[in-house]
Formats: sequence, C-alpha cells, structure tokens
Amino acid sequence: MSIIKINDIYIKECASVVGKNESEGPLGKYFDLCENDMRFGEDSWEMAESELTRRCIEMLLTKSGKKGKDVSLVTGGDLLNQCISSAFAVSENDIPYLGLYGACSTCAEGLVVGAIMAEKLQNDVISFASSHFCSAEKQFRFPLEYGGQRTPTSQSTVTGSGAFLLSKSGKIKVTEGLIGRVKDGNITDVNNMGAAMAPAAADTLMRYFVESGTKPSDFDVIATGDLGMEGHELTKQLMMTENVVMGDCFTDCGLMIYDMKKQDMHAGGSGCGCSAAVTAGHFCRLLEKGEIKNLLLVGTGALLSKTSANQGRTIPAVAHLVRLESVV
Amino acid sequence: MSIIKINDIYIKECASVVGKNESEGPLGKYFDLCENDMRFGEDSWEMAESELTRRCIEMLLTKSGKKGKDVSLVTGGDLLNQCISSAFAVSENDIPYLGLYGACSTCAEGLVVGAIMAEKLQNDVISFASSHFCSAEKQFRFPLEYGGQRTPTSQSTVTGSGAFLLSKSGKIKVTEGLIGRVKDGNITDVNNMGAAMAPAAADTLMRYFVESGTKPSDFDVIATGDLGMEGHELTKQLMMTENVVMGDCFTDCGLMIYDMKKQDMHAGGSGCGCSAAVTAGHFCRLLEKGEIKNLLLVGTGALLSKTSANQGRTIPAVAHLVRLESVV
Repeated sequence: MSIIKINDIYIKECASVVGKNESEGPLGKYFDLCENDMRFGEDSWEMAESELTRRCIEMLLTKSGKKGKDVSLVTGGDLLNQCISSAFAVSENDIPYLGLYGACSTCAEGLVVGAIMAEKLQNDVISFASSHFCSAEKQFRFPLEYGGQRTPTSQSTVTGSGAFLLSKSGKIKVTEGLIGRVKDGNITDVNNMGAAMAPAAADTLMRYFVESGTKPSDFDVIATGDLGMEGHELTKQLMMTENVVMGDCFTDCGLMIYDMKKQDMHAGGSGCGCSAAVTAGHFCRLLEKGEIKNLLLVGTGALLSKTSANQGRTIPAVAHLVRLESVV
Repeated sequence: MSIIKINDIYIKECASVVGKNESEGPLGKYFDLCENDMRFGEDSWEMAESELTRRCIEMLLTKSGKKGKDVSLVTGGDLLNQCISSAFAVSENDIPYLGLYGACSTCAEGLVVGAIMAEKLQNDVISFASSHFCSAEKQFRFPLEYGGQRTPTSQSTVTGSGAFLLSKSGKIKVTEGLIGRVKDGNITDVNNMGAAMAPAAADTLMRYFVESGTKPSDFDVIATGDLGMEGHELTKQLMMTENVVMGDCFTDCGLMIYDMKKQDMHAGGSGCGCSAAVTAGHFCRLLEKGEIKNLLLVGTGALLSKTSANQGRTIPAVAHLVRLESVV
C-alpha cells in the first residue's frame, strides 16, 4: 500500500498572505493579508520572502490563539536555494523545524508530513509553504531589471504563503496522503514547468485512483498545485491515455489565483505559495463551510536546478497528494 | 514532550560510498565502496554527486537483498541547490521520494523522519544523505580552479554518501528522535561553519539531556555531524556554561573521517555525507557487533545560502538528534 491513512488529524486553522497581483485576482478577497509592497519592508527579495512567511505563521498563531510554545513542530519550505527564506522566518519563534524540499509540491508534502507528525506527537504542528515572484525570477531565470520577454508557456511565481495548524480537532480532516515518485519527462525548457510536471501529476493521480478504487467524479474538487494552462491540458491528456476522464472537478491552483483573461500571467501561477495560498485562503474556507465535501490536492513540483538546466539536463518532477474532507 | 519515541524500527542494513580522501582516512577500510575518480564517470560535479548517491542506494538494496519495489519510501537530501543530485539519483528507481532539506543535518533528520515513516507505513524505508567536495566548493565558495587559500577554520566537504534501510527488524534500534530549533549565532563568516552550528548543537543536546533526564556519560558515543575542530570546542564550552561536561564520549564525525595530523583538512570534514558515511560505515558496524551499546547522533546543519551571506546576513543553523541502540 502506498496510500497513507491519517488517523484523526484536522486542519484546525489556516492563514494566507499574498502580494498585489494575487490580491487583484478572483480569490483576492479570501486571503487574510494582501501586501502591496513587494519588498515587505525589507531590503532584498530573499528577506521579503522571509518576512512574507514570518507574517503568515504569525497570522496563523494569532488566528488560532496559540503561541509558538504550544506547537510541537513547524514543517515546510520554499523555492530559494537552501530554503533560506524559511530558515530566517522560523529562526525567531523557537519551534522545532523540520525542513522539506519538494519545490512547488511543498504545500502538499508539508500537509502529509505535518499530519503524520501531529498524529505521532499527539500535539499541534504547523505546516507552511511560500514563494515570491521576484526572488524566484532572480534565482531561476533572470533578474527582473533585465526585462526579459516571457514565453507563452511560462508561469508567474505567486507571491504568497499559506500556513496550516494541524491538530486533533477541526472542521477539515486530513484523511490520506500519497508521496510521489520522481518522474522525468525529458523537458529541458526552464520556461515550461507545466510540461515538466505533468508526468509526475498523472503518475500520482493514477496511483491514487488505482489503489483507492476511486474515480475523479468521487471528488468535489481535484486540484493540482501549479501546472498552469499547458501542464493542466497535458495531464488531462496523459490521464486520458489511461482511460481516466478527469472531468469538471479537475482544476489547478495556478489557473485559479489570477484572472487568466485580464491579468497578463501567461500560462498561470506557480510556486510553493500558489497551492499553499489557494488551499489556505480558498479551499479550506469551502471545506469549513461544507460547500465542498472532499478535495484531492496534488502538489506539483518541478525539481529545477539552474545549474543542471544550464548543463542541458532535463527537469525531473514530483507530485504529492493529500486528501482533505469536510466534517461539518 | 519534544523527544519522539520510535516504536520497533531498526536499521536493518546500511551502505556507504566515499571518495579518495575519505578512503585514505582512518575509517577508510570500513566504507563499502571507495571511488578514486572524483567525477564518478560523469561530466559535471553535480552529476558526479548524483552518481555517488545512486551507487550508495543501489549498494544498500544489493546488501539487503531488496528491490526498489520492496521499499515504500526513500527520504533524504543533499547540499546542492534544489537538492538536485538527490532528485536525479532517485528518478530511476520509482520509489516514492520525500525530499528533505536540513543542510548537513540531513542524515539525522532523515533517520528520524524515515523511522517515523517506517513505523507509520509498517514497511521498509530508505533514508540517505550525500555530499561532494567539488560540487559544494563550487556552489558555496569558489570553483576549485580558482585555487583560493582556505582559512584555518574552514572545513573540507566530504565526498560521501550513507544510506540506511529502516525496517521492522535488525540489530540497531532507532529509539528516539529530537527535531532541532533554528539557532542563529550571528556568524557571517562562510568559512566558519563550526561556529555557526555550535549554538544549534548545544541547544539540541541540552533539550535532550533535560527532557530525557540523561547525562553524557550515559552514552558510549555522542557524535555531532560536522562541527569540526572549531565547532566541537565551542559546543563543549557552550555545554560547560550549562554545567554539562561532555566528556570523552563526545566526538564529531568531521574529526573522525580524516587523519587530522597527516591529511591537510584544516578544521575537519563537513557536508551531509560526512555524518552519513561515518554512521553507515563505522558507527553502525560497532552497534551491530555490540562494541558500542548506544549512540546519540546529532546532525548539525548550517543553513548557509550564498545569496544571503553575500548580502551580509548571518548563517542560521539547526541540529537534529537521533538515538541508536545496539540490540545484539
């Protein structure tokens, strides 16, 4: 068995912080905090991302009436080299920190690991994931000042963070997790993360459906993290070759966070913060109200290294799945 | 309670692969495979490191008579940006992959997470950690061709990998784990990782002793991952200020892997692969034979980002602890 059954762990509270573009998208009003200053009051993009994460964790603690010492563990990560924005963000609050690396799959990976740890520790655990447009563009492609032309398949890294309090009670139950396998679709284009991630997303979805005996129509929403327009279509086609029609419940956080007609976001949103903010700000709200009953979140991560990409290597990818159910 | 009790999970088998310098050190004869070609037959340092990891996991599977499909999960990581050498290393074997980031603390972090996952999944899990001298120097400091002079406090990244099969039986029991807190000692010198990591090591050791009611002399060996000469002394001093005398059982994998008198390694070895190879090749052999009965391994990780270090920021650090006991 690959599916991991989680026993009695719930998302008790969540928090989301985003930047200006995300606040102007269709989900803008659902995020807890929208910051128009892309620097978040800091003097570098890396520290801006760190401050974004710090504020999101602080918001989560405030919303849930907790202090750092009430929480046994914080787990999560980001896209920056050595996950440096996360390290600085958690260095002040003295909560034991379990660092993850799953690229843009970190939100789902963190929910699975966090839920297992909360079950094991029988105490509250925080999981989080964050990304920042400016630090990601600088690190993975070009500094913004270069003003490079973006290709149609390129996605826009979400400036956003989502954090979750995993606990022994709550309205959203974390019922199952599935850890993904690294899949390499032989994509070398660093501006086409969707195509790089589609094989991993399809692999995880197929493994889940086969092992659980479920089908897409059993779920109110099946959301991938940040496949964007290209990757979303490719995943539907890959599933079709396995005779699985994904149907209307199948969506992608990267296609939801921006207005794809009005905002100039090319193939959609991406980054750890994309699925983290959409899940914390939007899906969890729907699950808490019982407006959707169950959700499969498939975090999709392109394990892109600029060094190996410049060496002409392909971009391997991984997709982790977490199943969330409303218990209201 | 911060200490995590692990129920009936054992290191059933382990494997270690190292490079030339490590094979010439005092533990050389205990490693499973020594490769004199620093490129491991590949055309870049990053792919060399990936091949090192791949061989180590393959060696582990061979030694334990397992195939990839027998294992439920592989968890671990490395020091490279986006842990790219690990991603390529596991992309061929189709085992679900849980990526960690803990810098040089990854071996201990992986043993804790891997043991919890093996307990949860009730099936075999692999944990691993790797590093490579040339890829690390290139990424964190200067390309080797630059021929920079190294400072006395600088350490030498170990070219090595260690992998562990965590299972329901074996001669070495994984009894406890403790996840570290991120500590920032305000060190900004990228050539003094030992000083950056010492506060995290001392914090984790103190938390463990206070909570468990144990003292250093209760253990045959207490080994930090890669504090090196400087960090080892500083940690002893920090513990002394808390009235804890670490005593003769206190050592450091970075001081053990090289001959500190004959090999020109400055402050000692470092890197994920240091504690991973020393634990897999040396400590596990002693535990399996019952020559030592118990071991506290404290993986020490400097969460060093070249970007933030160049921005003048400090180097935060984390230390994770795992307790291993011989059951022969």
